[in-house]
Amino acid sequence: MQRLLSQIVGPSNVAFSGFDETYSHDATFLTNEPDMVIHPASTEEVAAVTKVLYTHNIPITCRGAGTGLSGGPVALQGGAVLCLDRLTGIDIDAPSMCAVVGAGAINLAIKDAARNFGLMYPPDPASMATCTIGGNIATNAGGASCLKYGVTAEYVMGLTVVLADGRVLNLGGKSRKRSAGYRLSQLFVGSEGTLGIVTQATLRLVPLPDSRTTLLAAFGSVDASANAVAGFFASGILPVACELIDRSSLSYVADLLPETITSDAAAVLLVEFDDDLSKTTLAIEKLNDAGATSIAIGMTEAECEQLWDARRAIGERLMARRSHRLSEDLGVPVAKVPEMIKRIHQIAKEANVEVAVFGHAGDGNIHPSLIFEDRDPQTLSRVAKAASAMFQAAIDLGGTVSAEHGLGAIKREFATAEMGELTVDLMRNIKEVFDPKGLLNPGKIFPSTNLADETFMDALPGWFE
Amino acid sequence: MQRLLSQIVGPSNVAFSGFDETYSHDATFLTNEPDMVIHPASTEEVAAVTKVLYTHNIPITCRGAGTGLSGGPVALQGGAVLCLDRLTGIDIDAPSMCAVVGAGAINLAIKDAARNFGLMYPPDPASMATCTIGGNIATNAGGASCLKYGVTAEYVMGLTVVLADGRVLNLGGKSRKRSAGYRLSQLFVGSEGTLGIVTQATLRLVPLPDSRTTLLAAFGSVDASANAVAGFFASGILPVACELIDRSSLSYVADLLPETITSDAAAVLLVEFDDDLSKTTLAIEKLNDAGATSIAIGMTEAECEQLWDARRAIGERLMARRSHRLSEDLGVPVAKVPEMIKRIHQIAKEANVEVAVFGHAGDGNIHPSLIFEDRDPQTLSRVAKAASAMFQAAIDLGGTVSAEHGLGAIKREFATAEMGELTVDLMRNIKEVFDPKGLLNPGKIFPSTNLADETFMDALPGWFE
Repeated sequence: MQRLLSQIVGPSNVAFSGFDETYSHDATFLTNEPDMVIHPASTEEVAAVTKVLYTHNIPITCRGAGTGLSGGPVALQGGAVLCLDRLTGIDIDAPSMCAVVGAGAINLAIKDAARNFGLMYPPDPASMATCTIGGNIATNAGGASCLKYGVTAEYVMGLTVVLADGRVLNLGGKSRKRSAGYRLSQLFVGSEGTLGIVTQATLRLVPLPDSRTTLLAAFGSVDASANAVAGFFASGILPVACELIDRSSLSYVADLLPETITSDAAAVLLVEFDDDLSKTTLAIEKLNDAGATSIAIGMTEAECEQLWDARRAIGERLMARRSHRLSEDLGVPVAKVPEMIKRIHQIAKEANVEVAVFGHAGDGNIHPSLIFEDRDPQTLSRVAKAASAMFQAAIDLGGTVSAEHGLGAIKREFATAEMGELTVDLMRNIKEVFDPKGLLNPGKIFPSTNLADETFMDALPGWFE
Repeated sequence: MQRLLSQIVGPSNVAFSGFDETYSHDATFLTNEPDMVIHPASTEEVAAVTKVLYTHNIPITCRGAGTGLSGGPVALQGGAVLCLDRLTGIDIDAPSMCAVVGAGAINLAIKDAARNFGLMYPPDPASMATCTIGGNIATNAGGASCLKYGVTAEYVMGLTVVLADGRVLNLGGKSRKRSAGYRLSQLFVGSEGTLGIVTQATLRLVPLPDSRTTLLAAFGSVDASANAVAGFFASGILPVACELIDRSSLSYVADLLPETITSDAAAVLLVEFDDDLSKTTLAIEKLNDAGATSIAIGMTEAECEQLWDARRAIGERLMARRSHRLSEDLGVPVAKVPEMIKRIHQIAKEANVEVAVFGHAGDGNIHPSLIFEDRDPQTLSRVAKAASAMFQAAIDLGGTVSAEHGLGAIKREFATAEMGELTVDLMRNIKEVFDPKGLLNPGKIFPSTNLADETFMDALPGWFE
């Protein structure tokens, strides 16, 4: 089998030992070493490799850039890590406003290629400079601009998928509207590599906006900032992005805030517009109405970028602590954002765990990061318990334990609590249709038991290196 | 069984004979009489009714307002027509910018309810004043404003679905972003009642824009109008709607055109904006650049509505000829619109069939209507042959035989030609998961054979009353 795989992808693109430890983890604390790492270069090579692995019953875990935050690309049961980072083709069809891209194309490279034609690919996960579209599709990735522009799923017009047994499935294409047959493309989006291997996507593009303005506003309370957001919506204002940084996160980026915004604000809203200036003017009014204590305004590209510095740096500065933080991703109905943030702080306080909160306030997507210095079992158990309680709180508020990262390995035990047994059962039946041998990314999405809290708490400490 | 069904929905809400002929057809020529017509009032009643029908192996065809254009709500194998027109609840949650609506809620009623809160539900099929959201979801309905705002699928955040055996499935909810588990909601959208019975939906709303402008521009050729559309996109302009009416349709509405636009134009573009005026100004420039021979501009609500009159009337005037026209719905990549229109006219001319062409040029969705006076087998065979050729042309151009109407009964024989055997096989397997007895809307979506053209041509004449 080793020789066969070598023949398909070339000997330098497959390894059965001695590979970099990077292939054992994503951007979480979770690690497991695969038995082999394979780098195919095309849909045909993926199909041929998959056929071989299928015959030998070897699990396949796909990987893009490894920026995932739920353990998705970690080969928990060993087997093959299939790196799609050589499928980097990007072909812009400007007249039909779409892009045909390989699964390994970097999100930002797609944006840049589209920009050359006056077009835009909007979804912008924080890791967009390195993450691949394949990973974006696997997790239905979001980002800051989803408030106005929507998530990855809304840009997928077509997919090429290699099935578990190596057959190639072509779905959709360059037609922007399609109401023929089941929406199978949408079933693969967000399926985290458990139903098939996406090798190519046709993505919808939109005209590139020609200007931007950014506002950064400080508030004395999270409620006041939430009122400002509600004020936007009630006044016909839909910003591109509406980001919240609460006091717990501001301390990490105090050096990057403009002079007028101090890090002792209870909450800071970062609001971006890419349409007419009248909306920006109206938004300033609404920010003041809601009690903003100060507002910084960016009108030039450089000024806008500067106002984004603090928001962007939070993720990066927390990300540097891969083994000492749990970056979470909760979604709640927009109106429940203040309540969710309140509960996050309560839970963290009770568990004696440090938490930094920020997120996409405009669409109810909150990222609490749990931070810890020690990694002894007691500390990790406290962290796991706090995270569990936050997941449950999001579910109780009608929300989700994953707004844009996927369930992966880390949150799969919460699938039943969020979705209910019937939904999970139907998902298992669909999985059976596409992957009867259970070889595609085993140990992800589906819960091992229904005892969500206990399992998660028990498992978490063991996952740390 | 009859007594049991009567008990569940009340005797006045179920009939086993003597029902109106309206329950035998939708807005197409296709007709078949059901064995019973049932009007449940709630998810619970739908579940109870479905359980009874499941036990007795009786097919269920759901129906909203019967405005479908692919034969979807016609009970081809008899059995029960399940009318969801009593599930009309509309509950706007303004702070979380969403609506929870019953399957029988009228599209326009949802728009009106949202408007009271300064919010908007964008999808706007031509039949929006009467069609129900259940039907919109079943067909993933579109409309003119999809160019900017997207189709029905992009507004579905959650669904309540009664499964074939009567179990109730709850999917998603009020959280705007959700990346937990498979996107089952999206599998039901566009599934035309073949996988389950959608009884309730949670819909995303957006802020209501505060102004609109409309442009109506005449061109000497379809190519010139297409160049204008391309000019918009290349200049960062994304109109709400960008509708094309070609000469073949203009004659039907000559009396409704403004004085400056004559019905001998080769093509007319109707362009709508709801953002800043600078876009409208730029658009006028692009229309002139592309060679518009005259442009009418609407700035007030009344002026805009007047410019829409002609476009709206086309559908209505053709609709009045239910038994003497075939309204079709093709989608192609945007750049292929001129080529598609050219082929439509060629095909119609060769088949000696009158055709009226209009559609949503901005997203590649073209509606050719085939019109005929006689209904003798020879004429109908010519119509069927022409329609078949148009479907094949759309597929050849990388498009679809249904952009926003669904395959229903009328276009199911083209499923394999468009999607390929593997996709259709996988769809059958998914159907088997949800509806193992095959009771939900039988005879729809799935082809009876693979001989698309012949079957369609043979079947069409027989379908006419």
